[in-house]
Amino acid sequence: MTVQPDIYSELSNHIKPSPIRALIPFIRQPGVISFAGGLPAPETFPVEQIQEITQNILEEEPGSALQYGPTTGDPRLRQAVADRLTKKMGVDVEADQVIITTGSQQALFLAAMIHVDRGDAVGVESPTFTGGISAFDPFHAKFIPFEMDEDGIKTDQLEAWLAAGNRLKMLYTIPDFQNPTGVTLSLERRKHMVELAKTYNFIIMEDAPYTDLRYSGEPVQSVYSLDDSGHTYYCGSFSKIFSPIRLGWLVAPKEVIDRLNVAKQPVDTCSPMLTQAIAYYFLSQNYLGPQIEKITAFYKARRDVMLSALDELMPEGVTWTRPEGGMFVWITVPEHVDVQQLFHKAIDNKVAFVTGSAFFIDEAVQPNTLRVNFVSENGEQITEGIKRLAESLKDML
Amino acid sequence: MTVQPDIYSELSNHIKPSPIRALIPFIRQPGVISFAGGLPAPETFPVEQIQEITQNILEEEPGSALQYGPTTGDPRLRQAVADRLTKKMGVDVEADQVIITTGSQQALFLAAMIHVDRGDAVGVESPTFTGGISAFDPFHAKFIPFEMDEDGIKTDQLEAWLAAGNRLKMLYTIPDFQNPTGVTLSLERRKHMVELAKTYNFIIMEDAPYTDLRYSGEPVQSVYSLDDSGHTYYCGSFSKIFSPIRLGWLVAPKEVIDRLNVAKQPVDTCSPMLTQAIAYYFLSQNYLGPQIEKITAFYKARRDVMLSALDELMPEGVTWTRPEGGMFVWITVPEHVDVQQLFHKAIDNKVAFVTGSAFFIDEAVQPNTLRVNFVSENGEQITEGIKRLAESLKDML
Repeated sequence: MTVQPDIYSELSNHIKPSPIRALIPFIRQPGVISFAGGLPAPETFPVEQIQEITQNILEEEPGSALQYGPTTGDPRLRQAVADRLTKKMGVDVEADQVIITTGSQQALFLAAMIHVDRGDAVGVESPTFTGGISAFDPFHAKFIPFEMDEDGIKTDQLEAWLAAGNRLKMLYTIPDFQNPTGVTLSLERRKHMVELAKTYNFIIMEDAPYTDLRYSGEPVQSVYSLDDSGHTYYCGSFSKIFSPIRLGWLVAPKEVIDRLNVAKQPVDTCSPMLTQAIAYYFLSQNYLGPQIEKITAFYKARRDVMLSALDELMPEGVTWTRPEGGMFVWITVPEHVDVQQLFHKAIDNKVAFVTGSAFFIDEAVQPNTLRVNFVSENGEQITEGIKRLAESLKDML
Repeated sequence: MTVQPDIYSELSNHIKPSPIRALIPFIRQPGVISFAGGLPAPETFPVEQIQEITQNILEEEPGSALQYGPTTGDPRLRQAVADRLTKKMGVDVEADQVIITTGSQQALFLAAMIHVDRGDAVGVESPTFTGGISAFDPFHAKFIPFEMDEDGIKTDQLEAWLAAGNRLKMLYTIPDFQNPTGVTLSLERRKHMVELAKTYNFIIMEDAPYTDLRYSGEPVQSVYSLDDSGHTYYCGSFSKIFSPIRLGWLVAPKEVIDRLNVAKQPVDTCSPMLTQAIAYYFLSQNYLGPQIEKITAFYKARRDVMLSALDELMPEGVTWTRPEGGMFVWITVPEHVDVQQLFHKAIDNKVAFVTGSAFFIDEAVQPNTLRVNFVSENGEQITEGIKRLAESLKDML
């Protein structure tokens, strides 16, 4: 006898596995060049420095590095993150405004946990990051998608929706090199967004995992730094600039951090002190700056190869974004192309991507889109992969 | 302006911080001998082996150890845990019946997430582990406490409650050296519990963090191994036998693991691959057996010192459990003693414990109890601490 299905909670019956993970069996075939992933390139991991740091930790402070720690994180790491953000953003961030989380995925989950009641409206970019959706979904958020263009989410559309009397609990945004589009939100719209948050009293959840990965153009001020009202939370991650050792952070008013602390206790008590100590020393020994320089040079070259290959090889009628940073390019194919069918044709041609529909709340919107990652494969593979993708497309035009 | 309180979710307003954490400011005073903690002794951490293993991992497989991994865990670690449990419990455990979690706290949280709807009855031992309560509380479980005696939870009481027509979703139990009482559930009651789970169709959540820490007496079969029906889940942890590097596991039928996989994705994507690799090699290089021998010898000596000190120093009318393993002794003082007052008197005398009321669903039950940890302080401190506690008590009798 096995356990009966009726023993599962409504929550469990409600949440769905990541649509991207459903593609994995297709992607993981021998010889497939994959633009489908969201993983950083392991060649960029600062292995030697991690070796040196870890050895020192295990010699100097094994008793605390291998022990339980505070739920809000290693106080030294909270301070180091606060100091770095203060410097980067030009606004004061205090250590007690920072909570360390088991990846920034957990930061989103905890923020949803303390704020989102069943049916609460959570605004999202359309398209948006699937992990963001998954963080809010267990709490039965009602997602309100807002369109994007080359300047990011259309805040005018948001304003019209709010002015019509709708109540928003939270707006989830990735302003820099957004996943999946690669688009950066303009300064003007950031300011507009903050004004709306103040007027209509909602929280802006600014997710900034890619912000340090800028390859061209000028940095835009964070939404957080434009908001002196406490409506904006800022979340970041070590995953894309260091390694996905499952450490992220969330910056918010102190009373919100206290709530997040209580919410994190049942979830995992605390994040590992060992990985936190590794991240702390990486920051305190000033390794992060040079590391970011190294990664951005490495990824910039790959982005440039991909954009050149697209320019050279894509047939008429196909368009794509030209991201100034991050990891992704968003491709739009002619409307009559069935991207699901294209996916299978591309797999036959040994190249993989993610179908755009995976990133929309309403799958029917913009079905003629796809996301490609330009950081995982090397230059030669990128060119070859785009060639294969272009050939697959040409067969369907 | 700061964010308004009405922006918090019902969940956030409902959950409470750990009552034990509220004691920390009192306990962390200079010179206080603390029996209050639940931490393993850092002297037992296998630091040299972790150094050697970590160095090898960072040399041999940095690309995967520092990368994202599968949500269910490193497949090698799942297999190693399955193999160890198969051997220990005498029943087949397959790797796909195991999910690796960010501490066993997360295993409990995920189990609650996929099973517990608002108002679902969750049976607990009375008293019980506060972290267990905190895992179910966010989902608005209705806790049903069942009394314990020297043989553990009274399954007759459970049966009477079920026979009266009440529906139980899950029973949370720590059968071996329970936290906080140190009591071990008898074999007879384990069998009875399984029969009840089959008859009344509820899940038994067997939490076994201390099982390997046995200092005397004979091991009792796990509840899991007595149940051939799939009603029992088994959860364990590396925290007490290795180090609290935030790794635990949950064993359940494969279809339940699939549900837990989907539930863990939004929570933290995956547990760190680095710490999982460390745990994997610790198991595969057969370090765990000798490590457990070392820890049990170390903790047994401390338990014996504490029981001797209690025998010698406690005044008439005070009783306590004599645990065969684990970390805790449960002390019952005469009914007229106000244990809250005793706590403050003890702090004045530079010794700390946790008031028993922290472990009851209904705080009014058995207020004349307290928990002491015997593994954190050394032998000399234990004797001195019990002397101070006895003196504090004598002042109140």
